[in-house]
Amino acid sequence: MAKPIYSTYPPPLSEPEVEFLLSNLKDWSIAHGLAVRPAPSFVPQSQDPSGVLANAAPVTLFPSLFPRHCFEEGLAIQTAYNELYAAIARDEAWLREIVEELVEVDDFVARLWKTHLAVKQKGYVQDLTLGLFRSDYMVHVDPDHADTKPSIKQVEFNTIASSFGGLSARVSTLHKYLLSIDAYPSVLGSFMKQDSLPQSRSVPSLAAGLAAGHKAYGNPKSGTSNALCVLFVVQDPERNIFDQRHLEYALLAEHGIRSFRLPFHSILAHTKLDAERNLLYAPPHADGKTYEVTTVYFRAGYSPDDYTGEGDWQARLHLEASSAIKCPSVLTQLAGCKKIQQVLATPHSPHLARFLPDERSASRVLETFAPIYPLDRSEAGQEARKLAMDPESASRYVLKPQREGGGNNIYRASIPPFLKSLPESQWPAYILMEMIEPPAQNNVILRNGEMQKGGVICELGVYGVCLWRNGKNDDDKGQVLENWEAGYLLRTKGDQSEEGGVAAGFGAVDSCCLVDP
Amino acid sequence: MAKPIYSTYPPPLSEPEVEFLLSNLKDWSIAHGLAVRPAPSFVPQSQDPSGVLANAAPVTLFPSLFPRHCFEEGLAIQTAYNELYAAIARDEAWLREIVEELVEVDDFVARLWKTHLAVKQKGYVQDLTLGLFRSDYMVHVDPDHADTKPSIKQVEFNTIASSFGGLSARVSTLHKYLLSIDAYPSVLGSFMKQDSLPQSRSVPSLAAGLAAGHKAYGNPKSGTSNALCVLFVVQDPERNIFDQRHLEYALLAEHGIRSFRLPFHSILAHTKLDAERNLLYAPPHADGKTYEVTTVYFRAGYSPDDYTGEGDWQARLHLEASSAIKCPSVLTQLAGCKKIQQVLATPHSPHLARFLPDERSASRVLETFAPIYPLDRSEAGQEARKLAMDPESASRYVLKPQREGGGNNIYRASIPPFLKSLPESQWPAYILMEMIEPPAQNNVILRNGEMQKGGVICELGVYGVCLWRNGKNDDDKGQVLENWEAGYLLRTKGDQSEEGGVAAGFGAVDSCCLVDP
Repeated sequence: MAKPIYSTYPPPLSEPEVEFLLSNLKDWSIAHGLAVRPAPSFVPQSQDPSGVLANAAPVTLFPSLFPRHCFEEGLAIQTAYNELYAAIARDEAWLREIVEELVEVDDFVARLWKTHLAVKQKGYVQDLTLGLFRSDYMVHVDPDHADTKPSIKQVEFNTIASSFGGLSARVSTLHKYLLSIDAYPSVLGSFMKQDSLPQSRSVPSLAAGLAAGHKAYGNPKSGTSNALCVLFVVQDPERNIFDQRHLEYALLAEHGIRSFRLPFHSILAHTKLDAERNLLYAPPHADGKTYEVTTVYFRAGYSPDDYTGEGDWQARLHLEASSAIKCPSVLTQLAGCKKIQQVLATPHSPHLARFLPDERSASRVLETFAPIYPLDRSEAGQEARKLAMDPESASRYVLKPQREGGGNNIYRASIPPFLKSLPESQWPAYILMEMIEPPAQNNVILRNGEMQKGGVICELGVYGVCLWRNGKNDDDKGQVLENWEAGYLLRTKGDQSEEGGVAAGFGAVDSCCLVDP
Repeated sequence: MAKPIYSTYPPPLSEPEVEFLLSNLKDWSIAHGLAVRPAPSFVPQSQDPSGVLANAAPVTLFPSLFPRHCFEEGLAIQTAYNELYAAIARDEAWLREIVEELVEVDDFVARLWKTHLAVKQKGYVQDLTLGLFRSDYMVHVDPDHADTKPSIKQVEFNTIASSFGGLSARVSTLHKYLLSIDAYPSVLGSFMKQDSLPQSRSVPSLAAGLAAGHKAYGNPKSGTSNALCVLFVVQDPERNIFDQRHLEYALLAEHGIRSFRLPFHSILAHTKLDAERNLLYAPPHADGKTYEVTTVYFRAGYSPDDYTGEGDWQARLHLEASSAIKCPSVLTQLAGCKKIQQVLATPHSPHLARFLPDERSASRVLETFAPIYPLDRSEAGQEARKLAMDPESASRYVLKPQREGGGNNIYRASIPPFLKSLPESQWPAYILMEMIEPPAQNNVILRNGEMQKGGVICELGVYGVCLWRNGKNDDDKGQVLENWEAGYLLRTKGDQSEEGGVAAGFGAVDSCCLVDP
């Protein structure tokens, strides 16, 4: 990358410049619903028991610099990724092999699989599945060959509850607004222009995805007097509620489609299946009125923490067995588990070609994989163990638990002593992933009114919408019906370096300023 | 009005209905910038020193019922009102007679007049004036003839800093949204439909007014390299900032016009006049860049409280003397003083016909006047003194100080003892106005998360945009160039009755559900 740009970006601001930028950023955020409910540590519940307060969502003051070809590649390959994961989710036999390796070590995966099997036994009554996906990348600069072009490497692929699509579109509008009112120093004008700040179209595109599911469902099957709706299954309370609300509003305004929010724990209390397993929702406020659910959009249920007891698993089964289109189905959620990513990204893996027969697409997707190794007794596993136990080679890797929601990552030099402290029988519960080495860059994050300035790491998320038929038997392998790229998210957090002032953790919503390295 | 509607409106709600209505209302408000900065009593400044928190603006849960013909009449006569006040503002000789009666008792009016005279002496260099007006009404039901049709009576006419145009458009969208998601009980369906909830167009219409001023100003006169801008002169801090911001955003998005916010007390520090008295603004954040101001939009300077010393009066003079179009000019601000309203509305007044030669317009405007009497030694004044001192007739009147921002009103039975306690020489400082008797109605106001339910009073504000030439001499009386009605505001507050639970004070932003009485 062009060193001068990075080393002086963002430029220092005078006090009046900071004041102008901040006041415009804070007002614009609230005026446009770029907001979150405040954390209890910021506003105790006793101060605002009914929840009317909101605060500006954590955002970066500047759009972060992002190599244009990396951005364009990320967006361009999203439809291939959609196709890949739709194909994986349709291939139950292949998934079974993977999952069976996991059930011993991962209760959550085991329960999800059991849910699928239970529905399979009854017979699935809905052949369509909807995915609102997000593929997350970091820019990688090869540390041994710093003069090669940067590339994007995938961090993870989200098949369920891909968040921030509602806010990310607004952050790119915010940064474009700030540029249009000259809130950024004119010295940036040499590369920061309106057309170098791409507008994320995530809100209309994701809403159109939900609408596609809703329309594909067809007419009410439970009785012509029942209205149709989309059901957002949510956590409660939800601080990031406006992110979700923006999708609901777009679904209603642009497609005329009603949706309701239902906390995960209230599913069994407020929904039921009729004899044909149509999913009926009787909103508690609408005395006697019943809606037939076309599409269940999960913004909860993705983490073991959401399942506090058998009732929650029954609720998941209840939804999965219904004739509503699931966004996503249990199999699609399983397709997003870390183990699948690892299997695809294991060097010399044959699996990608199975799901993406188009060689050109497959090779572009392959380019975005960082090598991932199992720590089992396979050939690749033996190779991985050597890499992990040698302090020098380990310094380029991260050790991640295979379990979903299963604890912290172990980085670089900490890997050998960590593994030594574990009995070898537990090693297969981890995978070894080559570290993505993002270019150094700085930014300023505004969070709860505090500015945090320093080194940051950016993660590009590309949304994708995919609607497919699963196929009814071995002769009918299903088919992708809708497939599009659906906007982007840039998420930026402190780089955890000693000198950086930006706190670690979630960070902030950001947008891209595209640069040509 | 149809009694059954009023007596059962709003209908009682079940707990789930309240929960559904409130959660949707609160989320929608924040997601769409229907917000205010929290009062220090709600969120102390020490908790959020940089001001990132906001709360949902106080709104009514339901749109209040409003007679359709009253609403339509209010909107229909706005252009006549615009014409009336533009004509008054152009008639300096007539204004002088009124103002000269006031200067003894009202320092604020005296200083405004002095400001005008000072500019007149130098010569005005801008012949155009812009008005963003708001005419406020209440529905009046004649207490002695309760079976007559209700009508609207004017409360006041605002010629400066007419507020809530930014939020009122959103409240009507909010209530329409709540209706569209069936948050209102279906029992209301007999009269509450989308087309009985008129959408206020105040944001685009008022922004178009500022744009009309900006465009009429023409090309830069101070140097071709200077960009043009609109200047919002504001109070600082401003809790109602989003109301103003929505106009700024519309001005930029729909007309491509830059605007800046400048606190009233910073005018002299950051603006200057060139030799031709072009108003130049050098934003402190934009090192060296200078804007030429086309239009000064006052959202401050309307109240004596804004003028804390000679510097503020100098600043007002500085702006008034400039070649920027003032929204409004000092004369236009003076045209809005209570005394003018009183002079127009004094029974048998000849003045209305002077300014509104069209008899049909004049008679419709006249219909909206509640009789107002001076308490001086004129014929009308003598009549007023009798009405005011007799406890029975006084019960239909309110006594208002003539001074702008000049203290509290005295109502009904309190008038005779109050006047007795004053030396007669001070009586002319008050006017006597027939009480407007609004129909009883109930609503629920949500303010800072608390629901206040009870009797309410609604005030309809109709916005108007008017751009006119003042005329250069006795032969050139000027001319109205632009004149349109610009949306509406419904403002609702507790009726202060003993039984009502809604606190007095500003109340809430509301919208109209039109009914046919």
